[in-house]
Amino acid sequence: MKNTSLTDFLLQRVERGASASRPALAMNRQIYQAIRDAILTHVLPVGLQLPSSRELAQELAVARNTIMYAYEQLIAEGYLETRSGAGTFIADTVPVPRKAGAPADASDTPLLLSQRGQTLVQHAGASNVQWGAFMPGVPDVTEFPHKTWSRLQTKVWRSSNVDLLTYGAGAGYMPLREAIANYLRVARSVNCDASQVLITTGIHQSIDLAARMLGDAGDTAWVEEPGYWGTVSMLRSLGITARPIALDADGICPPEAELATPPRFLFATPSHQYPLGSVMSLSRRRMLLEYASAQRVWIMEDDYDSEFRYESRPLASLQGMDSGARVLYMGTFSKTLFPGLRIGFLVVPPALAAPFATGMSELYRGGQQFTQAVLADFISEGHFSTHIRRMRVLYGERLRLLQQAVQQHFGARVLTSGADAGLHLTLRLPDGCDDAAIARAAMAQGIVVRPLSAYYRNPTSARGLILGYACVPHASIAPLFARLATIITAHWPREAH
Amino acid sequence: MKNTSLTDFLLQRVERGASASRPALAMNRQIYQAIRDAILTHVLPVGLQLPSSRELAQELAVARNTIMYAYEQLIAEGYLETRSGAGTFIADTVPVPRKAGAPADASDTPLLLSQRGQTLVQHAGASNVQWGAFMPGVPDVTEFPHKTWSRLQTKVWRSSNVDLLTYGAGAGYMPLREAIANYLRVARSVNCDASQVLITTGIHQSIDLAARMLGDAGDTAWVEEPGYWGTVSMLRSLGITARPIALDADGICPPEAELATPPRFLFATPSHQYPLGSVMSLSRRRMLLEYASAQRVWIMEDDYDSEFRYESRPLASLQGMDSGARVLYMGTFSKTLFPGLRIGFLVVPPALAAPFATGMSELYRGGQQFTQAVLADFISEGHFSTHIRRMRVLYGERLRLLQQAVQQHFGARVLTSGADAGLHLTLRLPDGCDDAAIARAAMAQGIVVRPLSAYYRNPTSARGLILGYACVPHASIAPLFARLATIITAHWPREAH
Repeated sequence: MKNTSLTDFLLQRVERGASASRPALAMNRQIYQAIRDAILTHVLPVGLQLPSSRELAQELAVARNTIMYAYEQLIAEGYLETRSGAGTFIADTVPVPRKAGAPADASDTPLLLSQRGQTLVQHAGASNVQWGAFMPGVPDVTEFPHKTWSRLQTKVWRSSNVDLLTYGAGAGYMPLREAIANYLRVARSVNCDASQVLITTGIHQSIDLAARMLGDAGDTAWVEEPGYWGTVSMLRSLGITARPIALDADGICPPEAELATPPRFLFATPSHQYPLGSVMSLSRRRMLLEYASAQRVWIMEDDYDSEFRYESRPLASLQGMDSGARVLYMGTFSKTLFPGLRIGFLVVPPALAAPFATGMSELYRGGQQFTQAVLADFISEGHFSTHIRRMRVLYGERLRLLQQAVQQHFGARVLTSGADAGLHLTLRLPDGCDDAAIARAAMAQGIVVRPLSAYYRNPTSARGLILGYACVPHASIAPLFARLATIITAHWPREAH
Repeated sequence: MKNTSLTDFLLQRVERGASASRPALAMNRQIYQAIRDAILTHVLPVGLQLPSSRELAQELAVARNTIMYAYEQLIAEGYLETRSGAGTFIADTVPVPRKAGAPADASDTPLLLSQRGQTLVQHAGASNVQWGAFMPGVPDVTEFPHKTWSRLQTKVWRSSNVDLLTYGAGAGYMPLREAIANYLRVARSVNCDASQVLITTGIHQSIDLAARMLGDAGDTAWVEEPGYWGTVSMLRSLGITARPIALDADGICPPEAELATPPRFLFATPSHQYPLGSVMSLSRRRMLLEYASAQRVWIMEDDYDSEFRYESRPLASLQGMDSGARVLYMGTFSKTLFPGLRIGFLVVPPALAAPFATGMSELYRGGQQFTQAVLADFISEGHFSTHIRRMRVLYGERLRLLQQAVQQHFGARVLTSGADAGLHLTLRLPDGCDDAAIARAAMAQGIVVRPLSAYYRNPTSARGLILGYACVPHASIAPLFARLATIITAHWPREAH
């Protein structure tokens, strides 16, 4: 390639204006990139002499500085070399040929993702929509006391505490761990002190940490059927087999045959089963605790929305009944404050506190102490309790409005469950009903509902809809449910009418 | 147990004052817990009648409401039952005996942690100290423009945008992804648009995501020897074998024998090798890119502190030279802003953008859009560039002060490397020097240094110290290094004097 053709080559490649997709780069960057790409693709051969910066600047009609900048950068990076008195040349950076394994077969389908990556994507459960009627599991974030939070935030920033800005060591910001321990002891009868509380980014990280620290690839975990998709996704990507165990009226009910081969973990939502909303009976709780203690099973108690109980006082946690130190208790501020906060907690038996704190540092590098400090103040100044009390009243009203709407449209034709607590109501539909089709039809009208059948891993005849009411304004509940009722009725199986 | 002995039992268990470790629970909670524990441990048998609330209140000398509250809670939870006209009794909640596997052997050592959990704890690399001279990898967080950040934060909170508070979908807050893409294209010659940028909580989460999405248990990754402990910890806990590959003057240098069996991943720090500080040569870059393309290896480029370059203009990223879409580029704001922020980014080839976004939702449930929005404003208003420019000058001065101190105490007796960029200087010591002992002795005097030998996985004769200078005030550098020099001299091997 002669110098004139280098000029042509560059003229073809530089853009003078911005394209639609991205702003045009500065001219010197464009020239730098064009020459570099030409070297990398062997268009410009090793040893070729480049025109002088003055000459090239003239030909391209740009400032000489522009060319000098590009050349200097290419020299600094080793693409070009200057030979004293002779000029600027393409340096020899062609890689030394190396022996290597046979090149990958080009006809081979390019399997970009790993097996576990493919499985994760195929079984994805997270929705792209995270707000609106009747999205389950999402609180009304518009009711969050923004001003109070913002004020506390400004106060904490003003303190300019270096420890809040650097890497966090281990289990989290101690005053927050203390505030959570105090709250859990009183509100949930959790038997713990601050040293057992680890601050995580939520239930997912709590599961991830426990599954790595206590489980190896090839281990088994029992999960509730139906149950939360996230637990299964997390376990699977760590090589742990999630075994769906059906529920009976008392809660998760491992059959005799399963009991003979104890799993490494048992995941349960004893206070408010997700998604059915039932409460695990005392007798089942005691059975599982004794079994876990005798067989060294780790019980993972997910207490995701127990703060909102409308019909009765909240039940104590399973952890608080456990004398065998086999229960790990998980909670989150996603439902009580707002999901985007990404703060949850994991309470572990005393013997696990130190290794788990080390594990957290290693796996996640601690941090966000700043937000943790704001939350600690928010709790200790009483704003957390106030907010929960206020939301409990608000959500209780919304629940009643939804129950009335269901009653009005369907009367005794549908059963509901889960009304004593939480942020969602489960509506049971007759077996022949295509709940997934209802969800799709509702989504087309801008209404989010989750089909019950999607919470099962094994084939099931259970049909229903999970309706979150927490983030729906009072006045919208009846009209939006009326629209949903029309869709449900259109999908109602004939024989069930 | 008779009623009088129930009274005695309760009198022994309730505390009237606060103990040292935790505040006393309300009396009703204490009575509730004492009765519940007695039921769970079979101290109170099934069918036993309890004294009336009036009677028990009198005996314990507490208000009748206190006992009624405790009884009601125990009835609500199923521990007690009332028989109409007869009184309150211990309910039958003794679990049904179940067949089960043989109980775990009690003589068996209680292996609490999983294999991978034990390995993680045994090889823990994170330090409990995260601040002070000469902690490597930590920027001067006291120089962070707190007021500007706090102002932007208040502004974003005032906007009350619901999307910032609920769960985030996928890859992160779009305006931040755009700001990062624009920055990386210009500053690091990264070839990307916003759709390829995923917002993570830092390098660790970027590694975790890539290792799960692209790697299965049993896969191999090449890592630099010496190198960052965190990469190895993350990979190991996902079942991926980290194979240490020695460096030569050009960078990571896989021997012929290794090249024949390509790994799934190659992890490298081409711009500023961690911890040695060298720059990967252009010829090695091209060799690795061609090898990765032919053998379908994923190159994980960790560009952790390339923003701070003192001697020359920054080198372009490896990603920007890659025509085969085999490079994933990782960066972080931990070094440029502050570590506690926990925001980093992963740039993936276009084909991986969608599955990676899905994987993020599944594994981590997105969030912290609020902080992401503040950072997006911080960048787009120009504060990020201003801060980096200011810090580059400041750190450059500190580096020179440290180099002068080293020169003054040791002259030509020690070599340093890594002075052209980053936040740390690597000081090479003679082979016989016990660098770990120096680090311990320094720590005893409150000086943090990392021994070079700790960055090696295989036995090594390399000895040295990694000295972070970024978070040490100008005036402290010379006196603190003088103290460290005394310790080094005391550990200097005789034959090397």
